[in-house]
Formats: sequence, structure tokens, C-alpha cells
Amino acid sequence: MDKSLTFELLHKDKKTGARRGRITTHHGTIETPVFMPVGTQATVKAMKPEDVEKTGAQIILANTYHLFLRPGSDIVREAGGLHSFMNWNKPILTDSGGYQVFSLGAMRKITEEGVMFASHIDGSRRMLSPEVSIKVQNDLGSDIIMAFDECAPKDADRKYIEKSQALTTRWLERCVKAHENPDKQSLFGIMQGGFYRDLREKSAKEIVAMDLPGYAIGGISVGESKDDYIGVLDYAPDLLPENKPRYVMGIGTPDYIFEAVERGVDMFDCVEPTRIARHGMAMTSHGRISIKNAKYERDFTPLDPECDCYTCRHYSRAYLRHLFKAGETMSHMLLSEHNLRFLSKMSEDIRKSIEEDRFTEFKEEFYKKYYG
Amino acid sequence: MDKSLTFELLHKDKKTGARRGRITTHHGTIETPVFMPVGTQATVKAMKPEDVEKTGAQIILANTYHLFLRPGSDIVREAGGLHSFMNWNKPILTDSGGYQVFSLGAMRKITEEGVMFASHIDGSRRMLSPEVSIKVQNDLGSDIIMAFDECAPKDADRKYIEKSQALTTRWLERCVKAHENPDKQSLFGIMQGGFYRDLREKSAKEIVAMDLPGYAIGGISVGESKDDYIGVLDYAPDLLPENKPRYVMGIGTPDYIFEAVERGVDMFDCVEPTRIARHGMAMTSHGRISIKNAKYERDFTPLDPECDCYTCRHYSRAYLRHLFKAGETMSHMLLSEHNLRFLSKMSEDIRKSIEEDRFTEFKEEFYKKYYG
Repeated sequence: MDKSLTFELLHKDKKTGARRGRITTHHGTIETPVFMPVGTQATVKAMKPEDVEKTGAQIILANTYHLFLRPGSDIVREAGGLHSFMNWNKPILTDSGGYQVFSLGAMRKITEEGVMFASHIDGSRRMLSPEVSIKVQNDLGSDIIMAFDECAPKDADRKYIEKSQALTTRWLERCVKAHENPDKQSLFGIMQGGFYRDLREKSAKEIVAMDLPGYAIGGISVGESKDDYIGVLDYAPDLLPENKPRYVMGIGTPDYIFEAVERGVDMFDCVEPTRIARHGMAMTSHGRISIKNAKYERDFTPLDPECDCYTCRHYSRAYLRHLFKAGETMSHMLLSEHNLRFLSKMSEDIRKSIEEDRFTEFKEEFYKKYYG
Repeated sequence: MDKSLTFELLHKDKKTGARRGRITTHHGTIETPVFMPVGTQATVKAMKPEDVEKTGAQIILANTYHLFLRPGSDIVREAGGLHSFMNWNKPILTDSGGYQVFSLGAMRKITEEGVMFASHIDGSRRMLSPEVSIKVQNDLGSDIIMAFDECAPKDADRKYIEKSQALTTRWLERCVKAHENPDKQSLFGIMQGGFYRDLREKSAKEIVAMDLPGYAIGGISVGESKDDYIGVLDYAPDLLPENKPRYVMGIGTPDYIFEAVERGVDMFDCVEPTRIARHGMAMTSHGRISIKNAKYERDFTPLDPECDCYTCRHYSRAYLRHLFKAGETMSHMLLSEHNLRFLSKMSEDIRKSIEEDRFTEFKEEFYKKYYG
């Protein structure tokens, strides 16, 4: 490969915007649309990397904010990078740390330079900026690195969003300049602009002009209503180049994924499947279930009879309920593995349905079973 | 097999009492001396059964007290027994629940019938007796089941121990009578008698007369000084039949294992390796280390360079320290797997040293490296 990443558009669904694609990175190939499990602190919680891979995961995400603070990106660099440090040899995407520092609320201050914040670990004053974020991501050696953008507050007015979008573009220019390893690591830009179509258009124009290997649509996934989410997705993907991957960050429920795929988005990630697993929740072909429920006490059938995962092949609902009630780590391990397989299998089925021009039909079937 | 269990004495060390043996059960063969990992609540904490097996584990232990209370042995029986419930197809040994109920102190009352106690889960009044313990173990379907004995308090006087030993024999007779599956499940008797040699002799005589498939030496492993422990082991194993397996419950540190093996004991179990793992402690060829230690921050070597386990093949001390400091479950998973492999490998080396009549030399070498 002479580029950090290539994207092939293999097929376009005849009736919707859904796309079947293939991303190739220096650590391997990713068939899209793809769901990416999250390994926040250089580990997908309660899972060995081999087991993550067995669920069908093609790429995982790790968090710059967390690894910047602990263990520190210098240590990961000395370990030979994140792939080697955490024993994951397939592609890795890192976020910029922006979302986490903006979530700190009163504990952070935004300037043109970047964001000053207090570490959630020891309260120490730290700075994340376009340069620091890219430096950390260069240290980590992830295959896809994300631009450091401003995530505007949910209640921000148009004036705030205007300034924020402009700042995000200026920060992106600094990210591009700071990036020291463009041959191996692909920097993705992030479109902002809130729910203002003209600002989204302005943002897209500015970031697409920088000819980056891929683009994300920011500011729609967390805490927004489904209507607002779909509202932006109805036009935003088309503002981005067709021949480059498109990514919506932080979505992990089937409906949010289907709606994005339908409108031409290729990549998604979320902590949802592993987080709910630790609370005893499983995603199944017939919707979510809570394994705590007393009705599973003597239910010796698998979590999801239609699932081919390790958990469903070897354990019963009764056993999983017992583990959860007994506070055993194994319940987190087994439910996490199942939930990741569920989203991976759903993504496989989505890809197949696009190839066969029956995405809409598949979406309908899926919704009927999952949402009832 | 026409018996529930067979024991072959393959070789006796020329210089010590150490024995190399082989136990065959309906779920497979166990080379002895053997260390048995503990899966208290039908799971070896933070490990998949396949990974437990990969450490070299030949048999695991599960706890009657815990499974009696939760999920209840009827549920395990309906699931097809413990092997099927927890997805472990090699041999399983269950204890009698005695040790746990006696540990409840003021919360339990001993009578001729058995022990009334308050459940640690919901405070409900429950009874464990020879009949109940054996019924639960029959439900669980474990390959080796243990007699329900009285574990006398540490400060008990001779009069107490005399009565307790006699009660344990009467209870053993009731266990034998209550046992409904002697063709598939082997009931082991437990010798008691405290630190009184004549009482140990009396106990041995009474329980050996019942011609059980194996015997344990009780009341020496937990909270006793090493001198007291060795004091009993100096004569107790010889009071038991040579052609049957001998078991000391609850020992998991190398020195306690070596001293027991040297005196003719074949089986051991302990929560120690997995419990200390969850506190960041690893057993290595050069002794115990705490992965929390700041000196491992940039140590990119394996936990134990001489170890062949999954953890040591794939991860560095720096990564393990990061996981532990970050509170990640994966640190429990990886350290547990390493510690189990450590004791399994130590047992393999012990077996080899006995076969080659150099147990004493191996013990010396091991102590020099481990205890320094």
C-alpha cells in the first residue's frame, strides 16, 4: 500500500443510500458497513482480544483521553504502539479525546489553543489541543486517527455553533500539520454545524477541501433525539465524498445503525453492547432481555437460539442468570461476547442485504423481530 | 469402568514419601500429585473453562455451600449436572459445605443432626447435614464428593476434639448411607482428630474401615502454623491406605504443597492463586510479585519469562500494571490464568521429579528460586 488507507465502494443499494464498501489499512481489511467495539483503556472490557476477534470484530476503537492520562502515550509508544501493547493485530481507530474533555463540563476551559481540563484520575491540570491529540494518537500508532474537534453543548445557540464550527475547521488545519505519520495512520476530519444545514454545508466544504482519507459526521449521536439525528443524516452524508469512508461516532443501537446505513454511513462504534452486558442486558434476535429476570431461573435454552456465539453455544440462560446474580465476572465476559457477536452478525447481514439490493426488506424484517 | 474411581500408584520416590499416581474417573484421568483450581460458584472466577483447561488443570473444585444456596442444587440437576451447567467436561470435586458453615461462627448451631445456619445471601435459616450435603452433591453430579465433617474451632480443647472426631465418624456413616450414586461419584472420607496423634489414629481406623475410594486429612490447612501442619503430615498420610488417593484441602502456597507431597499426599486445592490475582499478585519462578509496583511501569518483559502461559506469551508487565491500575477486569483474567498455570506447571515438574527420583533436589531448587 502506498497510501495510509484505501476505500473501495463495492456496491450501492438500488433503493436507498446504503453502501457496501471495503477499507484497507496497514493492519488489514475492514468490510463496511462495520460496527467497531470499544476498548476504552486499551482493552475491550472483560474480553480477550482473540475472543473479540472471534465475534467477527474487524477493527476496534480506543480512547485517546483515557490513554493520554493513563498509562500515558509515551509508555504505549515504548511498548511498540497500541497494537503490540494490547495484543490486537487488526486495525485500531482512536478518537481525539475531544468528546471526553468536553463532557467534563465545569472542569474544562476552551480557548483557541485547546482545552484545559482537570484529570478525572488525580485532578491534575492537563491540556488537550489539536497538536497534543495528534501527538498522542501518533504515539499510539492507531490506523485511523480522529481530528480534535469541538463538541458543542446540546443547548448551544446558532451563534455558538457558528463559532464552534469555524474553530473546528481551524483545529483540523492544525491537526493536519501536526500529523507526523500520514503514510501509516489515516486522519479523519469531523463535520460539525449542529442542526443548521448551511453550517453543515460550510463545514463539509472546508474539511473536504483538505482531501483527508475519511470523514465523520459529528455532533448528532449522543443525547440527540432520533428525529434530529435522522434530520441531519438525511443530507449530511451526501455532503461528503462518495469515495471515502463515512463514520458516525458513538452509535450502538440497531435502529440508529440501520438509519445511518440507509443514508450512506459506513462506520459506527459504541460502548453500548459491552456496557449493557455488565448490567445483565443481552441483545437478541427478538429484542433486548435482562438476564436478571426470574423467568430465566430454570430456562436451559441459550440466550439467543439463533446466535452462533461462544456464549450461546455453551451456556444456558439459567447459568447466565446464576452468574449475574452471584456477581461473577464470567457473566460480564459471556454477555459482552454475545452482544458484540450480535452487532457483528447484524452488520454481516446488513452487508449481505446491500449486496443483494434488499436492505430495506432486511431492515423491516429485523425491526419486526427486534422491536416487535 | 466398573468402579466410580480407580487409583494407580505409578511410582514412589526413593528418598521421600512422595508418590506419583493416576486417578481415573468417569470424566477422565488425573495425574497426581495434582493442584485443583477452585470454581466456588460454578465458575473459576474471571476465566472461561477452556482457558482453565489450557493452564493444565485436570480437575476443578466447586463449593456445595454456595451452590446449595444459589442457584440451588435442583436447578443444577435439571441443567444436567454441574459439568453441563458450567461447561466443564473434566472431573469435578465438590466439598461438603462443612467448612463454610462452620466458618459462620455465631450464625450457626451444631447438633447431632447437622448444622443450622443463616444464609449469607438472605439470612434465611437453612440446615446442612450429612444427608443434605450428599443429596446436594448427588444433584451436582461431581466425580468426587466429600463427607460432611465437623471442622473444630482452632482453639478447641482435647475434649472438644474427641467429641468432634466421634461425631465426624457418625456423620460419615450417614453420608455413606445417604449416597445415591456410588457407581459414578466417589465419596471421600475425612480424617479428623486435631493435633492428637491417638485421635488421628482412631479417626483413620474408623474411616478406613468403611473402604471408601479416597481420603482427606482435615483440620490442618487453614489458620494452622506450618509446624503444626507438618507435625500432622509427618504421620497422618501413613494412617491411610497406600492404594487410595490422599487429599489435603485448602492449600495453595508452594511450600504447603511441597511439604504435603513429600509426605505422600496426592491432591490439593485452594482459592489462593485466583484470589491473589484479583489483588494484582502474581506467582513467578522467582517468587511473588505485585504488579502494582511502580517499577513495572515501563517493564515490557513478561510477568515470568520462564512461563509458557497465555498471559506471559502475549502481554508485558507494563500492560498488566496499566490494566490493574485502570481497574480493568482483564487484569483479573490475565493474572488468574497465569497463577493457575504457575501451580499447574509446578505440579507437572513435581510429578516429573518423582518419576525420576529427584523430588528432594527439585524441591530445593524450587525453594531457592521462589523463596530466595
